[in-house]
Amino acid sequence: MAPFCSPALLQALLDVEVALADAQAQVGMIPRDCAADIRAAARAEFFDAATLAEAAKTDGNIVIPLIGVLTKQVAARNPDAARHVHRGATSQDILDTAIVLQLRVARNDIERELTAAMTAAAAFARKYAATPIAGRTWLQHGSPTTFGLKAAGWLDLIGRSRARFDLAIEQALVLQLGGATGTLASMGADGGAVADAMARALKLTVPPMPWHTQRDRLVSVAASVGVICGALGKVGRDLTLLAQSEVMEAIDTLPGGRSSSMPHKQNPVHAVTAIAAATRAPGLVATMLSAMPQEHERAAGGWQAEWQTLADLIDITKESSVAIATALANLRVHPVAMKRNLALNGGIAMAEALSTALTPHIGRREAMQHVEKLSRSAQRDGRSLRDVASTDAELLKWLPAADIDRALAPENFIGSAETFVANVLRAWAM
Amino acid sequence: MAPFCSPALLQALLDVEVALADAQAQVGMIPRDCAADIRAAARAEFFDAATLAEAAKTDGNIVIPLIGVLTKQVAARNPDAARHVHRGATSQDILDTAIVLQLRVARNDIERELTAAMTAAAAFARKYAATPIAGRTWLQHGSPTTFGLKAAGWLDLIGRSRARFDLAIEQALVLQLGGATGTLASMGADGGAVADAMARALKLTVPPMPWHTQRDRLVSVAASVGVICGALGKVGRDLTLLAQSEVMEAIDTLPGGRSSSMPHKQNPVHAVTAIAAATRAPGLVATMLSAMPQEHERAAGGWQAEWQTLADLIDITKESSVAIATALANLRVHPVAMKRNLALNGGIAMAEALSTALTPHIGRREAMQHVEKLSRSAQRDGRSLRDVASTDAELLKWLPAADIDRALAPENFIGSAETFVANVLRAWAM
Amino acid sequence: MAPFCSPALLQALLDVEVALADAQAQVGMIPRDCAADIRAAARAEFFDAATLAEAAKTDGNIVIPLIGVLTKQVAARNPDAARHVHRGATSQDILDTAIVLQLRVARNDIERELTAAMTAAAAFARKYAATPIAGRTWLQHGSPTTFGLKAAGWLDLIGRSRARFDLAIEQALVLQLGGATGTLASMGADGGAVADAMARALKLTVPPMPWHTQRDRLVSVAASVGVICGALGKVGRDLTLLAQSEVMEAIDTLPGGRSSSMPHKQNPVHAVTAIAAATRAPGLVATMLSAMPQEHERAAGGWQAEWQTLADLIDITKESSVAIATALANLRVHPVAMKRNLALNGGIAMAEALSTALTPHIGRREAMQHVEKLSRSAQRDGRSLRDVASTDAELLKWLPAADIDRALAPENFIGSAETFVANVLRAWAM
Amino acid sequence: MAPFCSPALLQALLDVEVALADAQAQVGMIPRDCAADIRAAARAEFFDAATLAEAAKTDGNIVIPLIGVLTKQVAARNPDAARHVHRGATSQDILDTAIVLQLRVARNDIERELTAAMTAAAAFARKYAATPIAGRTWLQHGSPTTFGLKAAGWLDLIGRSRARFDLAIEQALVLQLGGATGTLASMGADGGAVADAMARALKLTVPPMPWHTQRDRLVSVAASVGVICGALGKVGRDLTLLAQSEVMEAIDTLPGGRSSSMPHKQNPVHAVTAIAAATRAPGLVATMLSAMPQEHERAAGGWQAEWQTLADLIDITKESSVAIATALANLRVHPVAMKRNLALNGGIAMAEALSTALTPHIGRREAMQHVEKLSRSAQRDGRSLRDVASTDAELLKWLPAADIDRALAPENFIGSAETFVANVLRAWAM
Repeated sequence: MAPFCSPALLQALLDVEVALADAQAQVGMIPRDCAADIRAAARAEFFDAATLAEAAKTDGNIVIPLIGVLTKQVAARNPDAARHVHRGATSQDILDTAIVLQLRVARNDIERELTAAMTAAAAFARKYAATPIAGRTWLQHGSPTTFGLKAAGWLDLIGRSRARFDLAIEQALVLQLGGATGTLASMGADGGAVADAMARALKLTVPPMPWHTQRDRLVSVAASVGVICGALGKVGRDLTLLAQSEVMEAIDTLPGGRSSSMPHKQNPVHAVTAIAAATRAPGLVATMLSAMPQEHERAAGGWQAEWQTLADLIDITKESSVAIATALANLRVHPVAMKRNLALNGGIAMAEALSTALTPHIGRREAMQHVEKLSRSAQRDGRSLRDVASTDAELLKWLPAADIDRALAPENFIGSAETFVANVLRAWAM
Repeated sequence: MAPFCSPALLQALLDVEVALADAQAQVGMIPRDCAADIRAAARAEFFDAATLAEAAKTDGNIVIPLIGVLTKQVAARNPDAARHVHRGATSQDILDTAIVLQLRVARNDIERELTAAMTAAAAFARKYAATPIAGRTWLQHGSPTTFGLKAAGWLDLIGRSRARFDLAIEQALVLQLGGATGTLASMGADGGAVADAMARALKLTVPPMPWHTQRDRLVSVAASVGVICGALGKVGRDLTLLAQSEVMEAIDTLPGGRSSSMPHKQNPVHAVTAIAAATRAPGLVATMLSAMPQEHERAAGGWQAEWQTLADLIDITKESSVAIATALANLRVHPVAMKRNLALNGGIAMAEALSTALTPHIGRREAMQHVEKLSRSAQRDGRSLRDVASTDAELLKWLPAADIDRALAPENFIGSAETFVANVLRAWAM
Repeated sequence: MAPFCSPALLQALLDVEVALADAQAQVGMIPRDCAADIRAAARAEFFDAATLAEAAKTDGNIVIPLIGVLTKQVAARNPDAARHVHRGATSQDILDTAIVLQLRVARNDIERELTAAMTAAAAFARKYAATPIAGRTWLQHGSPTTFGLKAAGWLDLIGRSRARFDLAIEQALVLQLGGATGTLASMGADGGAVADAMARALKLTVPPMPWHTQRDRLVSVAASVGVICGALGKVGRDLTLLAQSEVMEAIDTLPGGRSSSMPHKQNPVHAVTAIAAATRAPGLVATMLSAMPQEHERAAGGWQAEWQTLADLIDITKESSVAIATALANLRVHPVAMKRNLALNGGIAMAEALSTALTPHIGRREAMQHVEKLSRSAQRDGRSLRDVASTDAELLKWLPAADIDRALAPENFIGSAETFVANVLRAWAM
Repeated sequence: MAPFCSPALLQALLDVEVALADAQAQVGMIPRDCAADIRAAARAEFFDAATLAEAAKTDGNIVIPLIGVLTKQVAARNPDAARHVHRGATSQDILDTAIVLQLRVARNDIERELTAAMTAAAAFARKYAATPIAGRTWLQHGSPTTFGLKAAGWLDLIGRSRARFDLAIEQALVLQLGGATGTLASMGADGGAVADAMARALKLTVPPMPWHTQRDRLVSVAASVGVICGALGKVGRDLTLLAQSEVMEAIDTLPGGRSSSMPHKQNPVHAVTAIAAATRAPGLVATMLSAMPQEHERAAGGWQAEWQTLADLIDITKESSVAIATALANLRVHPVAMKRNLALNGGIAMAEALSTALTPHIGRREAMQHVEKLSRSAQRDGRSLRDVASTDAELLKWLPAADIDRALAPENFIGSAETFVANVLRAWAM
């Protein structure tokens, strides 16, 4: 049950206790030298995380045993100061605020990786804006698109997901300080001033009221990293599909991902890490949502369910961000394979292109029907669509051979791909 | 598999086909009178939803059979016009855009109910800002809070959730138009102009690029209604707990919720509807997230999983919003019961108040220990804390009887409750 | 909120009321002719589902308004009989028992389709037991397996999932009859006899005690169909991957799944239906699990969350079962394509086979290293592994050319595939 | 990503490698002394878990670096033996089998705690079989039930959940051994014999075929512990509700769960631990289900998502089992409070009892209506139902005063409660 089970969390918890004491000293609630003694004792290396985690199981949360040990450590320096540890606060004040501090740190890590992934995607988008690749719908060839547009799709998706995450974090950077039942009654008239001073020190906002059982801010952060994981999972899925032995259009070349039994393999470990994260995130986000209906002024189960869940979500989002940034940074793109694959199955991926060229002459439905006939004949006889089309007397009545040729060249049927790529690059200033 | 399985969706789909034809007429891609014929035929009452839903199972989605029937209906008016139905679009363009239109409608319904709930909560917050009620943590009495602050917590929670939903919808109000594989190649040079005209007609934004397999916008809407359901579930849970036979501090008085076997009962149906929605929403949000890693240019499973899921999420969010708005509008508040409950168990809910009053005299730890002793003695002997305290010689050395009395009055230990209520009311301009 | 929102559910609810009345008549609690009048009135076509569903929103569940209408219908026949409608039962008794009856019907539908899918898979397993196909790990070629073994894997997976579902249903076929709070007090001394008679009529088991808030039986059914959906999703995923334009080893040939924009396409609609169901099921199962901690003797939210959720789960499981049964019944298998794909990339999928042949001569690690060298050289120079190997002087020292040839033939490196297929066929008596 | 991230897993992985080598020695595939050297080196304390976990991130799973280190350790003893480490197996063979071994260990831990919880519940069921307690539906008083029946409900629920878990584990105790792509081709003709010997050594069953991408067995275990968590969550929820300051009918008295700010509190930590686990389990089970559609012969994301998820599920199930076993073992039951609460609100919880007594005289509907009138009059005037009823002239015409008295005594309206308790105790032989 230890949340963010790490020295970093321990220090964050202690930082919050220190900020509380300092703020209370500032408003004259406790002596300044006592606050200094609390600060001196509040260093994570003086505490044993495993012991605290174990004690948390019977005490109900990790803050309760932490305060016990902290109070002893402070008392060893100054018995007077020990009386002022954790004055008027409740353990949830400390833990929630520490989690908020941790989220702020995580934001930097995650956004850095997402930006790296976006930069790599942007480079592909620009370079391959007009490079045809089979458009694939339902995992089958449709009309061509471009590899640049595919990469622009990744970029746009990651960009929006990062922006939402950033906003969700920003809205969650609020102090938690309410005391036992959220009124700060234990601080008498000083509650507001203590909260202001504490928030200033921690660079957090003071919310209109404590939020012990109003969990929407944290849950919205969770949802936003869930969306990031889903977005990176989409990129990862595309990468695994492109790297298939039968496709081989783009390969993550970073050493790693070797098979323990097959000498020739190089597994797409990074892409798969992102897919695994995208598989895990939805259940974890669901848990955060499920935990929202928390009872009265302090939850009986819901709050406690959040700790490990949110920590896991942040962790896998980091892992996934690193993985996709790495995969894109090491991606080798094979335009030749893209061209080769477009020609598979007699090149019938170009059927829509041909029917589009034909539509002005005989109308949409007739054009589709005629081209469908040509496509089926090509497939039946194992000939290419080009071959069948360029020898079809009827078709030649409407379209001269040169027009048929032009229609069947993938690079001539990429529509607004380059415009879309430019739009996306501009949107993210890349 | 029919999404938003309703005449409303059918009409939305047809509206999108009409907007497409009109836009194409505007840029000269198709004759204006053909667009008019398409518009004339595109009325939901001409179509049979059940037949289309059945056909969707083999065709893959509801748009494909819809186009078939629409084309026939148009052909009956004007065979020429029939050739211009659904020109250059793919079925996902139509369905996604129609879903976006439906979301815009749902926003109004949901926000209206949330605002009603907020208004009711604000009235309670204002009226009962200083009315003591037992603060309850872990479902047990802690120090008092006020019923107004509890209501302010509901208000603030719903308010933030509504704001996030509103933003998520706003960001999702984008056109989907990409054609078969997202390049709009089938519209040649006209793609951009068609998209612009179509978006204008539908009052949607044109996104930088089509988003067939970039689902973050819809998933973020789903997450935001998930948070709304969680928020309303918190209110619902509090209401069911307050209405318990042993508590009876606030009761939903609306007729309804009668028992089929017990003549005296009046079940909290509205609050329970909200809890049920909060129980269902997390799994549905998880499905939307799970569906994000969609393959290449069109999903093989993920998109299809979204339809009913998003429809259900919107439906239960509406139901839950109506339920909580109704419950709060019909809530009878019983301050007398709140006072009576605070006195239960010898009034030991005021223990923290007494130790806070004592702290300045003997320090925090000693104060807590002495009050704990008094509390246990009161519980052991079945006396009230007031009785025990006012006859404790030691305590009287530090606190005169009048101070003890003052400390034990709940209304004197509500700290910043009124300030917090004012903050929240100001934040939502209520 | 209407569960199993259908005439079938309505009739099931009425059947339970009839069984209750008959049972009470049998033990002498109510007159026999009154039970007959209740039976006469209890026909779904006399009721309007939409009106009842609407009323359920305020009444709390669909049974309450149903009893109201039923009582009126009975009263029109015999005012005396109307006094005996729903005697001593609570609405949850009726609804839970009706759901159990519905599950029994659904079992037949689902198991029939699963058996059809198993039969089709068994035929493939037998026919192609020794037909090599590229084994694919991480979506890349590994050593070969056989298409028969792949099909045997589907068979074994579906078979086990069906067996678990069958057991879960069997354990859930229990009567619910407890009255208001589960004691049957309202039936005085007759409770046990009524339950026995009612269960006999409905062909259900009488459980040790009523189970209003012990939901494990239904949740276990939900979990078991969740596993079925996951199992069918695995088959569906394999099918979509095999049908890729670059792979084309097995294709669902059933008409349907046409594109609205691309004339040549035939989308794998059935496989995708199964993947969509596998994407939706986990969230729905999670909801059923989340709803388990139901309060005291009747839930405030949890029970209500089950209704639509369980209905949806059963529905998508049916759809998915039909889809995979259909896909397998119409699957065209292409051994030629399997052979062609095995030869891709210079046939390096056979690298492990070659190193296995070499291991007895120079040890495992050295063998892997030498074959890895040959593989990389083949890939670098665009030659086949066979070509490189058969001209490698070092290799020829250990393995004569004929042995190299034999090692590189996929059909010689399928290990125990045929044995495994036989095991699976025997296990399911197919 | 390290599953069951512990020395115990590490040893399990090594045990599987040892069993493999031993089996291969037995069938003559590798020299017996080499197997002995592998066994000597395969001790968890020779390995550094943190280093392996880190390497797993780039290698794809923890087995790959483990084999690397193991091979080195073996080589230090005997270079020849090093060539026989992990012969013909794939890393998934090792990891899956190790997970199965871990599940067998976890079964014992979990079942022991569940049995303890059942024993405690059985004692309450027996002792309080006829002790009235308010039956509570929708969190409001309904007719009485008995505390023994409530405890019997817990017992029955936990018992069934334990039985299903036990079966699921039993069915999952199968060896995983398939080699690279599931054919065991790398072991030539020896595959079957190796599998048999290995399974014998590990006391596992040999399945009909390897199950690399058929995950139903593990997912069914996951679902069964999900149901356990839900069942224990139901008990936990009841316990928190019973312990409310306004209810106080049953209290967990174990020291622990102290508040950091309120001297009088004793929080229901154990019950809350179970609720938290019940909140987390559904999302984790959903992840396991979501991961089922695994690609071809080895997953690209699904398998990887299982590791931490299954480990977490097992962990929280253990914690929850311990918590409820502890809570029930330390539960103090207060029949006096139960009696007092039944009398709240004028004792209208007995309304159904009165209308049941009246029904034989004037029919069900009229009885309900008359009692409803009396109830409302009692509530309006703040009188007890007994008082109102015993002075109601009309009622006295049908029921003599003594009968009214008898009808209103809770102990006379517990119906079949004692029979049900006896049924449940007999079912579990307790």
